[in-house]
Amino acid sequence: MKHELENGIALLERTPAALEALLRGLPEVWTETNEGGDTWSVSTVVAHLVHCEHEDWMPRARHILQADESEPFPPFDREGHLRYKGSKTLAQLLDEFARARVKGLEELRAMNLTAEDLERRAKHPTFGLVTLSELLATWAAHDLTHLHQISRIMAHQVREAVGPWVRFLGVMQCAGHSEAA
Amino acid sequence: MKHELENGIALLERTPAALEALLRGLPEVWTETNEGGDTWSVSTVVAHLVHCEHEDWMPRARHILQADESEPFPPFDREGHLRYKGSKTLAQLLDEFARARVKGLEELRAMNLTAEDLERRAKHPTFGLVTLSELLATWAAHDLTHLHQISRIMAHQVREAVGPWVRFLGVMQCAGHSEAA
Repeated sequence: MKHELENGIALLERTPAALEALLRGLPEVWTETNEGGDTWSVSTVVAHLVHCEHEDWMPRARHILQADESEPFPPFDREGHLRYKGSKTLAQLLDEFARARVKGLEELRAMNLTAEDLERRAKHPTFGLVTLSELLATWAAHDLTHLHQISRIMAHQVREAVGPWVRFLGVMQCAGHSEAA
Repeated sequence: MKHELENGIALLERTPAALEALLRGLPEVWTETNEGGDTWSVSTVVAHLVHCEHEDWMPRARHILQADESEPFPPFDREGHLRYKGSKTLAQLLDEFARARVKGLEELRAMNLTAEDLERRAKHPTFGLVTLSELLATWAAHDLTHLHQISRIMAHQVREAVGPWVRFLGVMQCAGHSEAA
């Protein structure tokens, strides 16, 4: 379990630099466009990642360690990314994500979690009891789901341009969209 | 059209650094595991990217510029990633991918492609005539489809660990797998 935690941290500490290398300075046709309708742009996804650093992962970890397990997590604002995005540029959002992630991981390490801590639980408003271990694994998986989404949003911009290759590119067929939770 | 080419190059030149930041030094539980059966590990995906740099994109671009449009691309070896992978470490494959990409983009830029060049065509063995413009857009989209796949392979490793969050994470629902072409 402690080993899983270390594996998760190894990924969590790399994501900001990966997004930085992929996204900073890219033409806006990749980063400010979306998949149609009210879907998210790449910049909006990064604002959502900033939001989650501030209001989801570590606050929920603290809640699990401090509260009685029957006490549900405080509500999570599904539109909160709008507050964090505001009129910020993608470059500013990438900086903010990187800073927030460093801070969050410092706090996580300082908790010196034991195997017993990782089994502690709290009540998720939608699906009931969850463990700290599940929350922390989800933090890492959530980075991956949004990296997955970012690659799909960007690929959407060249659906026409790739001509007949469209049907051979898995990312153009993806329907694996996340729900807020 | 030339503008699209520049947008594609902007992405193509960032992918190696993004994979570098995401993957180098990650525990093997993320990079040497797969999605079950004979699916690919992250390392295998990077070997495939190396293979395509050497035997797909720029060789096909040259073919389009040099050959008559009725002449099909030379066959592409669908198992060629195995030759490029061999016993190499992920770190070696990342280095090789970065070097090959720099070389390929240097060659692409040196071609000084005109709008007319981008409309030139060749015969794809599966779906007939394709343009150079479509090939180059697919080169960039192919990076994205494999970034999408890499995030999905990695997420697969924590399907159990995330507990009930599994059904809220889009990447865990993804069935957008690429076909070789």
